[in-house]
Amino acid sequence: MLVVGERINSTRKRLLPAIETRDIAVITDEATMQVNAGAHYLDCNAAAVGVDKEPEYLAWLVATVQQVSQDTPCAIDSPNPVAVEAALKVHKGVPMINSISAEKAKYDGLMPLARDSKAKVVALLMDDAGIPKTAADRIAIGRSLVTSLVKDGIAADNIYVDPLIYPIGAEASAGTAVLETIGTLKKEFDGVHFICGLSNISYGLPVRKLLNQAFMVLTIGAGLDAAIIDPTDRKLMSLAFAAEALVGADEYCANYIQAARQERLE
Amino acid sequence: MLVVGERINSTRKRLLPAIETRDIAVITDEATMQVNAGAHYLDCNAAAVGVDKEPEYLAWLVATVQQVSQDTPCAIDSPNPVAVEAALKVHKGVPMINSISAEKAKYDGLMPLARDSKAKVVALLMDDAGIPKTAADRIAIGRSLVTSLVKDGIAADNIYVDPLIYPIGAEASAGTAVLETIGTLKKEFDGVHFICGLSNISYGLPVRKLLNQAFMVLTIGAGLDAAIIDPTDRKLMSLAFAAEALVGADEYCANYIQAARQERLE
Repeated sequence: MLVVGERINSTRKRLLPAIETRDIAVITDEATMQVNAGAHYLDCNAAAVGVDKEPEYLAWLVATVQQVSQDTPCAIDSPNPVAVEAALKVHKGVPMINSISAEKAKYDGLMPLARDSKAKVVALLMDDAGIPKTAADRIAIGRSLVTSLVKDGIAADNIYVDPLIYPIGAEASAGTAVLETIGTLKKEFDGVHFICGLSNISYGLPVRKLLNQAFMVLTIGAGLDAAIIDPTDRKLMSLAFAAEALVGADEYCANYIQAARQERLE
Repeated sequence: MLVVGERINSTRKRLLPAIETRDIAVITDEATMQVNAGAHYLDCNAAAVGVDKEPEYLAWLVATVQQVSQDTPCAIDSPNPVAVEAALKVHKGVPMINSISAEKAKYDGLMPLARDSKAKVVALLMDDAGIPKTAADRIAIGRSLVTSLVKDGIAADNIYVDPLIYPIGAEASAGTAVLETIGTLKKEFDGVHFICGLSNISYGLPVRKLLNQAFMVLTIGAGLDAAIIDPTDRKLMSLAFAAEALVGADEYCANYIQAARQERLE
């Protein structure tokens, strides 16, 4: 599974002041921690500094994170094409753009950047009508969005469909809608990947980490092959290794056995 | 999820001498522990005392377990019709019989006991050719076995199909074969239940509990609604509550929220 480390995000209490004061130590500490824990990409989000300042701060954030490891590219996390463009200019290697959607303005602003940079791109299943509720609505948006992206020159292998998670506390079918969406689109679009920011599923319920753990395993069962998570959460990462071995996504259980030898499983 | 507590089993080191010496305290202690942890049935297995003595010892075991709680019936765990019949004679309430299969001698010996006692019955997907390897072979045996049981007067609601788990360490597709078998048969046979003894999946691999946890979540995703597990394993039970809430099998997340209030989730 491709792991996108979620910790460098301006919506976190510790991170916003660190980004605003350009505190290199806090940022590189968060980056190092996630790289050591097994992250393949590091999400970088500076949106909370405000739309005017975001381009400058996001570019600084990406450059600072890349001081730690250029083998671990960034997931440039912004809906703002100006900020994404500024970050792409300083990024070395092939980043991920998080995220495009079927909202027209967002699509038109970000698609050319994704195409020209050959970045991996997270494709959120929402359009100008908002977040779809049912599996059928998500699948319809997914079909249309993936088809558009491929037609516009984005390679299927660079597309990471994010079905957008709604809390099960608010909508009982929120979990099954995501599982059905992944399962259906995976069969229809060869080579396309599936990613989730998982933690929204548990919003408003007790013992949230437990629900996030179980939901990650369920989504891997449905075909998820990437996740935006906290890689320093050892139990969550352990369950990801186990689930991939169980669904045949880890040949000879090689990654699982290696993780056990490194004493990373619990 | 219907939880069958697996701990009272003569293949466990602590249990065999307790059964052989009729040590009531050990047995009632194991029973109490599992009832308190949320078991709905208590598996009772005395097979290791030897085939001649099994009927007498299994009947004693069932009677002893029922001293603890008659609200928690027994899963009478034996392939031996003589032992099952002896246990049924002393059992109060409606037990589970663990297990029948498509092996002819076993089917002919146990089916009449299951039918006449109106017990729930675990239906193992194996026949006289042995344990099937592929999903297709399991599904074929499942179709034939469930059809026979229903034709012979066993209510669909009393049938608990066990797809029989083979270790993924030995056969990479062992996990997906089980998930596919459950998913397919669940669509074809309305009202039939699905049960697994989960721990075989991890045989020969490190950190077995982790694989068992992830596999239970995956099988619940595929449609499992019963499991033969150790209910005193808090993390395993917690993940079962979480998975059921996530797949819509726990209306309003009521069981999940209640378990959280009782501080049973971790």
